[in-house]
Amino acid sequence: VAGPISVIFVGGNAGSWRIECCRTIVGESLPAAPWLALHGARDVAPEEDAAFVLRGSTGHVRYVENTEKLALAKVTPPLSRAEATLGAMIPIRKSDVWWELPQDERRAILAQRSKHITLGLDYLPAIARRLYHARELGEPFDFVTWFEYAPEHATRFEDLVGALRATEEWQYVEREVDFRLVRAAP
Amino acid sequence: VAGPISVIFVGGNAGSWRIECCRTIVGESLPAAPWLALHGARDVAPEEDAAFVLRGSTGHVRYVENTEKLALAKVTPPLSRAEATLGAMIPIRKSDVWWELPQDERRAILAQRSKHITLGLDYLPAIARRLYHARELGEPFDFVTWFEYAPEHATRFEDLVGALRATEEWQYVEREVDFRLVRAAP
Repeated sequence: VAGPISVIFVGGNAGSWRIECCRTIVGESLPAAPWLALHGARDVAPEEDAAFVLRGSTGHVRYVENTEKLALAKVTPPLSRAEATLGAMIPIRKSDVWWELPQDERRAILAQRSKHITLGLDYLPAIARRLYHARELGEPFDFVTWFEYAPEHATRFEDLVGALRATEEWQYVEREVDFRLVRAAP
Repeated sequence: VAGPISVIFVGGNAGSWRIECCRTIVGESLPAAPWLALHGARDVAPEEDAAFVLRGSTGHVRYVENTEKLALAKVTPPLSRAEATLGAMIPIRKSDVWWELPQDERRAILAQRSKHITLGLDYLPAIARRLYHARELGEPFDFVTWFEYAPEHATRFEDLVGALRATEEWQYVEREVDFRLVRAAP
């Protein structure tokens, strides 16, 4: 069992993912960049001329309960699958109202009423997903959500993000920028 | 409603709290220092000759439910009360086994079986408390717990930490260092 994985996402002139499009869903946008590079948080200084730099760190589950965790574990694929040449990076910030809610109310909105966990489950293993937490790092976003999928699942991915944005939970999102990515040829 | 408060704790030759004693409860110790200084994370570089530097950031509640939150809000005092001249800083790291548990199992251990939330409630408003999260920052500890109380409540504080260390939850603590502090005269 490893500890948190910390990543620096750098939008600039180099990287392992080409930024195909960037759409501001709500709130302030981020500067445009042609490429996205991922660096380990400890070993690399971000390039000075970067258009943007985001940081995030994986962590323990905040809402997932035991039966959900077992269901997820059965179908969760790894990242970096050869066929998953498309990706998405969606940094999100939720409102202060959300963060002031107690744990049981956030769980009720996210899991019971918005079906966030079971919705994601429906799209596994096609859509690989990793959640980076950023709020505690003092970042402008609370999360950087990361997705990888094969071109044949691009339509399903649009279904997934559309379904999530239609939920009660998403009413607490006050900033969201949606980057669609294409993995650079190795 | 404000966002997270980020703090750098510096053990060294200056600070607003005198370190009266430091006891390693479990795991690796920290270097000795006579004084503890608290800095905002954004505005001050830690002194170069510090014995130790710890970082933490406040955040939303992870386990507290609505009824508990209302009960806590009624009796929670502010920090920096004039009469609260004693303090404690207790950095803690929990095991990987803890962090791999799903949310409902951690809640059951912490709240139902270890009574962590109601235990703390019993000592309010005498013992003021603030929790700084550090795990996502890549720090050697998961939390820095902070307490402030008047000398007349010193015995009650010992009761509180003793009770918490006797719980099932505390069996997941793999590193803990206990600093007792005296506020410097203003």
